[in-house]
Amino acid sequence: MLLLSKSDIQACYSLTDCIKAVEDAFKLFSTNKVEVPLRTQIKNHANSGSYLCMPALCESYNASCVKVLNVFPENINRGESSINAQVLNIDTESGAINAILDGNYLTQLRTGAASGVAIEKLAKSQCHKGALIGTGGQAATQLEAMLISRHLDEVQVSDLDYSRAKEFAAEMTEKLESYKTTITAVPTANMAITDADIIISVTPSKRPVYDGTLVKPGATICGVGSYQPQMQETPSELVQRADKIYFDSQDAVLSEAGDILIPLRKKEITQSKFTGELGKVISGELAGRQSDSEIIFFETVGIAAQDLITAKSIYDKAVQKKVGTNWAN
Amino acid sequence: MLLLSKSDIQACYSLTDCIKAVEDAFKLFSTNKVEVPLRTQIKNHANSGSYLCMPALCESYNASCVKVLNVFPENINRGESSINAQVLNIDTESGAINAILDGNYLTQLRTGAASGVAIEKLAKSQCHKGALIGTGGQAATQLEAMLISRHLDEVQVSDLDYSRAKEFAAEMTEKLESYKTTITAVPTANMAITDADIIISVTPSKRPVYDGTLVKPGATICGVGSYQPQMQETPSELVQRADKIYFDSQDAVLSEAGDILIPLRKKEITQSKFTGELGKVISGELAGRQSDSEIIFFETVGIAAQDLITAKSIYDKAVQKKVGTNWAN
Repeated sequence: MLLLSKSDIQACYSLTDCIKAVEDAFKLFSTNKVEVPLRTQIKNHANSGSYLCMPALCESYNASCVKVLNVFPENINRGESSINAQVLNIDTESGAINAILDGNYLTQLRTGAASGVAIEKLAKSQCHKGALIGTGGQAATQLEAMLISRHLDEVQVSDLDYSRAKEFAAEMTEKLESYKTTITAVPTANMAITDADIIISVTPSKRPVYDGTLVKPGATICGVGSYQPQMQETPSELVQRADKIYFDSQDAVLSEAGDILIPLRKKEITQSKFTGELGKVISGELAGRQSDSEIIFFETVGIAAQDLITAKSIYDKAVQKKVGTNWAN
Repeated sequence: MLLLSKSDIQACYSLTDCIKAVEDAFKLFSTNKVEVPLRTQIKNHANSGSYLCMPALCESYNASCVKVLNVFPENINRGESSINAQVLNIDTESGAINAILDGNYLTQLRTGAASGVAIEKLAKSQCHKGALIGTGGQAATQLEAMLISRHLDEVQVSDLDYSRAKEFAAEMTEKLESYKTTITAVPTANMAITDADIIISVTPSKRPVYDGTLVKPGATICGVGSYQPQMQETPSELVQRADKIYFDSQDAVLSEAGDILIPLRKKEITQSKFTGELGKVISGELAGRQSDSEIIFFETVGIAAQDLITAKSIYDKAVQKKVGTNWAN
């Protein structure tokens, strides 16, 4: 079995690689090539934790995996990550479990890559300013995905905790210097989004984090943080103003994402506003952006197909580049 | 993460340890202390394989795990095991995945241990002869469990393939010599079971593998191999003659085991013959053997509670004895 830690994955696999993989994943998903049973969940009542178990198979991509993701919010009180995840990659010919991959890092990669694919497919070809709202564990790959998918002069970053935003901007300026983009922290989300061509929000907020009327025509907005029905980081005004609304999975968004569920429930929007799944834009079934003035909103909650195709593509690269630890079990 | 291969597990954990763990598992299961969602199954049509994913939690035992078990029967054609399994052990306080254990060996241990517990709890105190029918991958732990639970003068072993039975008997004679039991191969199952106090069958047969009228009063019989509705290794006559019938899980047996489902369907027995779960004998809710002349039948298909408690107890021993490979992921 091949053991792939975060640093092993970093040694052989880039976010650019992952954007390609997630593009495949969305297309395979939206053309019904990925088999995903209902995920099982067990609650740990004593420690307020949840255990999630997500198997998936795509025969046409020779990919099979199980992602085990445990969410224990109280870990934060001990200074530990609230999420512990591992992904088992499985050989589709023999059923052999041939690799275990750091699931936290894989999740960061594939979540960033989802926005990367959306921007590549839906943003205007010429973009100048980006905005990133939220600087938690998923933020770094979101920012890099933005820079991979469009050349930007600057990205403004904001967070409820301004000093955290400044630290993040400084760290990312160094890490992403090859992109030659100015990365700065600003004190408010509204400052960040003003005049932005690309906006990504990745917060667990229960209230909208910016003023939707300030978003400029032609902007592409990715809503990444809202993965529970009571979470709403994207203002209803923005969802109402959007000319097109895309999803990773419409079913998943409609069962989990407050960003869409709350305005639906309040009758601020109806389902007739929905354009469809990004995978269908990739397969050519659905149109993407049709003018530089359209406001386009992409809502993603994350789907097992992303984990599946990402794990397989990491494994293939690691084998090819002889990266990772072989455990002779 | 602690990596525990078969040889690591062998270095710190015995089948005797596992029999204690599985006794706990059956008791916890039958007193509703183990949470097990419906297992998910995905079929791989191109390669006739099945992927099974089985999470489980027992808060009162501080145990949580996910077993991933892939069954690809065509592997046999390449001289490989049809089963590939790994078990992830999970810390119940933080959700951290703290170990990965060889799931094939763990399955062999906990399956043998189930018969060990049944024999310990249900067999006559004085037994002399054992019979083992079937000498495949699960047979070694079945035989050893028999010897741990009762002192036997001899065990007779049979298999459709007599030469395989002879090889198995020779190998086991050497491996289990400390038990001072004569282990011999015989050409037919009926020879093996004649006059046997303990009988274990562990075959994938679709037809009964011995003559149920030959089983002597006082015998304890474990049916281990029948885990699908069309599989029947135990003769209906034996199920009819049994004074008491116990299960690991009555629900699981009634959804999977042809040993019980086939005589029920043919109206050779009715559910009124069922005594109940072995876990309730352990907890004191149900009587076990009440005379030396009763014929007692135990049918087991294997339940997630066994994997769960076995994985946790192996992990604890490995940590205590500093066994295994630490992977600093």
